[in-house]
Amino acid sequence: MKRLYVIKIGGNIIDDEQKLPSFLRNFASISEEKILVHGGGKMATKIAEQLNIPQQIIDGRRITDTETLKVVTMVYAGYINKNIVAQLQAFGCNAVGFTGADGNLMHAHKRARGEYGFAGDVDKIKTGLLTDLLEQKLTPVVAPITHDKKGQLLNTNADTVAQEIAKALSKNYGVSLIYCFEKNGVLMNADDENSAIKQISRNNYTELKNRNKVAGGMIPKLDNAFDAVSNGVEKVVIGQGEHLNELIAGTSGTCIINE
Amino acid sequence: MKRLYVIKIGGNIIDDEQKLPSFLRNFASISEEKILVHGGGKMATKIAEQLNIPQQIIDGRRITDTETLKVVTMVYAGYINKNIVAQLQAFGCNAVGFTGADGNLMHAHKRARGEYGFAGDVDKIKTGLLTDLLEQKLTPVVAPITHDKKGQLLNTNADTVAQEIAKALSKNYGVSLIYCFEKNGVLMNADDENSAIKQISRNNYTELKNRNKVAGGMIPKLDNAFDAVSNGVEKVVIGQGEHLNELIAGTSGTCIINE
Repeated sequence: MKRLYVIKIGGNIIDDEQKLPSFLRNFASISEEKILVHGGGKMATKIAEQLNIPQQIIDGRRITDTETLKVVTMVYAGYINKNIVAQLQAFGCNAVGFTGADGNLMHAHKRARGEYGFAGDVDKIKTGLLTDLLEQKLTPVVAPITHDKKGQLLNTNADTVAQEIAKALSKNYGVSLIYCFEKNGVLMNADDENSAIKQISRNNYTELKNRNKVAGGMIPKLDNAFDAVSNGVEKVVIGQGEHLNELIAGTSGTCIINE
Repeated sequence: MKRLYVIKIGGNIIDDEQKLPSFLRNFASISEEKILVHGGGKMATKIAEQLNIPQQIIDGRRITDTETLKVVTMVYAGYINKNIVAQLQAFGCNAVGFTGADGNLMHAHKRARGEYGFAGDVDKIKTGLLTDLLEQKLTPVVAPITHDKKGQLLNTNADTVAQEIAKALSKNYGVSLIYCFEKNGVLMNADDENSAIKQISRNNYTELKNRNKVAGGMIPKLDNAFDAVSNGVEKVVIGQGEHLNELIAGTSGTCIINE
């Protein structure tokens, strides 16, 4: 099967004027099929503040009321998505921006427990459209906005979007899902960037949790990673976007495997 | 040749909460191939005001400085484009949003006389991508943002975007270019919405201009329309978006023909 990289970046890359172009240059140079999923970074919060839209965060998640949905649609699908696409074009990568509404790529429903507002849980990824684009050597750049097919846009967690796309396309490709974040991987010692665990299997993970060696914030990331590898994704790599080439080569970051 | 409708809407439809869904319902029901080009409406000005970004308008055109480019990218490519796409999906039209950067659809250059800031003049429309999408029964929804292939987004007049797309695709399709604006067409009497001229040929136009029967604001629109029909577009129709079905049927608006 052909290889596909689904790569997710967040604020620590998006918000950094030096790191973003350097990351995008490396991303553009990947010769295999690839999809970029981006989060929002700090810009949505900043624009919301400037527009006097109070932001509520519960358990690290933004509450998406009507006005906040407007802001995240503008910032994620507009400013961030289009600037990434234009920069990738400059690096010779034929990128094309998508939200879940475009081509009905990601159909979602509003979360039943309404406390997160217009938050969408993904029901279906349209893999036919993505494989068509990839075969035409186009590179999808996906903003974490979905829709409910009734005209309503929804805000969806970017990690989840990357995971759902990776799982859905694992029928067609050998998928590597790469999460770029601020740390060098899953660290044995939170203060030591050189202590990244090279590989975590299911057994290792249970043991690490039992010994309280996994920081609280990493647990949902790792649970999601194991969900992905249990559902067809070949491997999940967690590490720093600055080392994208090394994450791909397997010489940096933490690799989660289905064993 | 297959028929293609390239339809442009501006603020008087986009800003109207009643008119927009009604227009989009009619647009979705067009059975032939179709492309929607949208302008920005008043929202960009409103958001710029709220963000304390002073707006300068010269000869009816917005001066696009760095901060204003950010706003139009957010509003045109983000908020307006994605809400239109989501609403069209709800009406069963498989819409997909584009700027000129996406798939390198519209390559432009920054206008040499720099007084308009980041304003882009279109160099090339990538017709292959558009015809591929149309053949797959996808409906492109185009925001008037282009790029220079060096990573810079540019603000481009939406009327011009519609015209360039119509001209470029006239090699592949019998193209009708429809401009929706606030009037019922080119009016003989500016105060009488029932005085729309049914058809204007090149000779009529010269005569109308000589008799001062054409209002100043209409002249660039009509000059552009004649440029389009001189370059392969079959006809240009100017009229009200509220009467989209009638504009298509030829029972409303003013039709500009190459005679």
